[in-house]
Amino acid sequence: MAKVQGVLELATAAKAAARRIAGASTGAKNAALLAYARRLETEAGPVLEANARDLAEAKRHGLSPAKQDRLKLDPKRLDAIAQGLREIAALPDPVGEITRMTVRPNGLRVGRMRVPLGVIAIIYEARPNVTCDAAGLCIKSGNAVILRGGSEAFHSSTALARLAALSLEEAGLPAAAVTMVPTTDRKEVARLLKLDTLIDLVIPRGGKELIRAVVEGSTIPVIFHYDGVCHTFVDESADIPMAVRVCFNAKVQRPGVCNAMETLLVHEKIAPAFFEKMLPAYRKAGVEIRGCARTKKLAPWVKAAKPGDFGKEFLELILAVKVVGSLDEAMEHIARFGSMHTDAIVTQDYARALRFVAEVDSSSVIVNASTRFSDGFQYGLGAEMGISTQKLHARGPMGLEELTCSKFVVFGDGQIRE
Amino acid sequence: MAKVQGVLELATAAKAAARRIAGASTGAKNAALLAYARRLETEAGPVLEANARDLAEAKRHGLSPAKQDRLKLDPKRLDAIAQGLREIAALPDPVGEITRMTVRPNGLRVGRMRVPLGVIAIIYEARPNVTCDAAGLCIKSGNAVILRGGSEAFHSSTALARLAALSLEEAGLPAAAVTMVPTTDRKEVARLLKLDTLIDLVIPRGGKELIRAVVEGSTIPVIFHYDGVCHTFVDESADIPMAVRVCFNAKVQRPGVCNAMETLLVHEKIAPAFFEKMLPAYRKAGVEIRGCARTKKLAPWVKAAKPGDFGKEFLELILAVKVVGSLDEAMEHIARFGSMHTDAIVTQDYARALRFVAEVDSSSVIVNASTRFSDGFQYGLGAEMGISTQKLHARGPMGLEELTCSKFVVFGDGQIRE
Repeated sequence: MAKVQGVLELATAAKAAARRIAGASTGAKNAALLAYARRLETEAGPVLEANARDLAEAKRHGLSPAKQDRLKLDPKRLDAIAQGLREIAALPDPVGEITRMTVRPNGLRVGRMRVPLGVIAIIYEARPNVTCDAAGLCIKSGNAVILRGGSEAFHSSTALARLAALSLEEAGLPAAAVTMVPTTDRKEVARLLKLDTLIDLVIPRGGKELIRAVVEGSTIPVIFHYDGVCHTFVDESADIPMAVRVCFNAKVQRPGVCNAMETLLVHEKIAPAFFEKMLPAYRKAGVEIRGCARTKKLAPWVKAAKPGDFGKEFLELILAVKVVGSLDEAMEHIARFGSMHTDAIVTQDYARALRFVAEVDSSSVIVNASTRFSDGFQYGLGAEMGISTQKLHARGPMGLEELTCSKFVVFGDGQIRE
Repeated sequence: MAKVQGVLELATAAKAAARRIAGASTGAKNAALLAYARRLETEAGPVLEANARDLAEAKRHGLSPAKQDRLKLDPKRLDAIAQGLREIAALPDPVGEITRMTVRPNGLRVGRMRVPLGVIAIIYEARPNVTCDAAGLCIKSGNAVILRGGSEAFHSSTALARLAALSLEEAGLPAAAVTMVPTTDRKEVARLLKLDTLIDLVIPRGGKELIRAVVEGSTIPVIFHYDGVCHTFVDESADIPMAVRVCFNAKVQRPGVCNAMETLLVHEKIAPAFFEKMLPAYRKAGVEIRGCARTKKLAPWVKAAKPGDFGKEFLELILAVKVVGSLDEAMEHIARFGSMHTDAIVTQDYARALRFVAEVDSSSVIVNASTRFSDGFQYGLGAEMGISTQKLHARGPMGLEELTCSKFVVFGDGQIRE
């Protein structure tokens, strides 16, 4: 990594490294992850120096204090990242697992073996910790990864990627399995996205604009989600205390993330009683309510929703609220305004719970729990590489398994076709 | 279907139909399939008339007798197609299955539910029976399908698609779930391939040129395979009678299909003894051998392979043969010249069998059996929609399951995130 490589050179090296890491033992991959964790704790110096450079530039460019905070690394944060890598090391290795092996009438044994995808490119924004998470998940799943972090975190991410490469070498694995695009030149990213014979998958993580640019510019398959316009529908049969607890959590617990609720739909029959408990709780928590006409009738103090408020990802303490006449109207609203991310129903009615689950076409459909659970860790995947609202390959939170594909493996003893 | 629709109109109707057929019961979908089978037998008149028109045009355009034969429909062939539809009806419904449901420590039940993809476009060449197979598989998997058959079979395919639409209506399902692009204008196909908000997946089936045109023109995800350059490696430890049987079958049983063997790799230690049995058998069957220099040394009568013969899909009784020094050299050759379709090893050695299975990066990897088994029916998928050599979503033969995706479903009883 001493001299600046072009993306073609870099992707070619990544593809060669991918073949080697695909066949690496679980032991070697875990050794690399544990070495990486150790280096983050014992060789933090260059990382913190690089981070100080990024922070100084961020200040000079007037980055918001919130963004500066997301950029900042300190020994405590590095320890947390190292802990994350140790957790990835402790996860089961997805590679090589053979599933659904069946014996055919002619004695052939046919199964599917989980194998790495190959080379994955991750295009992300300023958070330097994504560098380590992405590198860790790709190492464990036997893939090579090309990282292209945001320019604000360029020095930090480069220093973090360098420690990954050193750790791979220490474990006898190819350093080129984790590389960082060594420039912030956007043209190089555009070139990278056309290398469809070398790179197998692109995952963009960040704002809508970043994602749209990647989707439009890439000839490589892309897995992504644009936004999280999550709904909760409070059915007429809902248990009101449960509905209040769940809806409060979905909006307030962490409003700035993609699985926070943005629109609340309420069945007209329960609306008066539910609003009586719910709206004061929101008000107390500082949530701005933007209600439909029927909501305003029941709670005249709320703001009137503008048309654009339904289907909007606020990412702050603002909530659009609509009273609906039926489950069908709620599902129709979700189909029209949702983003196929995460949608929930609160209901005590068995049949309506099952209809909602079957008919709502979102990557996560939840009954009687907060939309905030839509997350790889909460779902027990052990890790998360992002959330997909695409239909092909992976949908919903992506864990280690979603960084693999399967091939058919067939064991015979001389069978031929008649 | 009386008036000609543009593709936008047609895809919009398909999307609406997709929502309805996604929620259809297994009973209704099977009723449509059985009605379709019945109509192919009892209402064959218009189909055979349309086929006669296609055949007359094919003769006028001087289509080869083999292609004319592929185009031809008669009551016996229609019965076979009807039987295929009845078999699809008898397969288990993939939709709605919930897999890997686990209980999280907080009591949330998290699983994955299999759901239809939505709208699938199939672009295929002249064989009219693909119309019925594709329609049948899409109906069963709860998808809407847009068919675009080859222009030579246009009238036949349109008549066959019309019977599908009538059968859907008969079963109370939307006729627009199966539609045929009502024109052979290529510009309309180009337009279709840009409708990425309406169509979820494109599957091109046919020659390399067709596939390349679709891949390059589409903004919708495409699943495909370019060609089948299948290898068999006869390891030094192979049982020679088994190797002869398997290699003969892989080349000779049906040479014109994508899972027929095109290149035979032979370990140098077994080459003399193996060739002594193998090559006369090929000679007797009329197989033209194009051998490497070492092959020619052992069997001077064979033709010398030209460089382009390795990695070529002959699709006829021609076989490239190469002597290699090791398993590694064989795998290196496959990585370089193969098409990630199907590759096989014949060996009695346990460790080498497992290495081949783990390290060869093809959609099907076979030990001690003919490459000809790489097929959805032979693998027990019950049906096949084509073969994918792509890494995302589906790899290898695609059955009903591969026409679905999964979403996360979460059942709670009031959980919130702390």
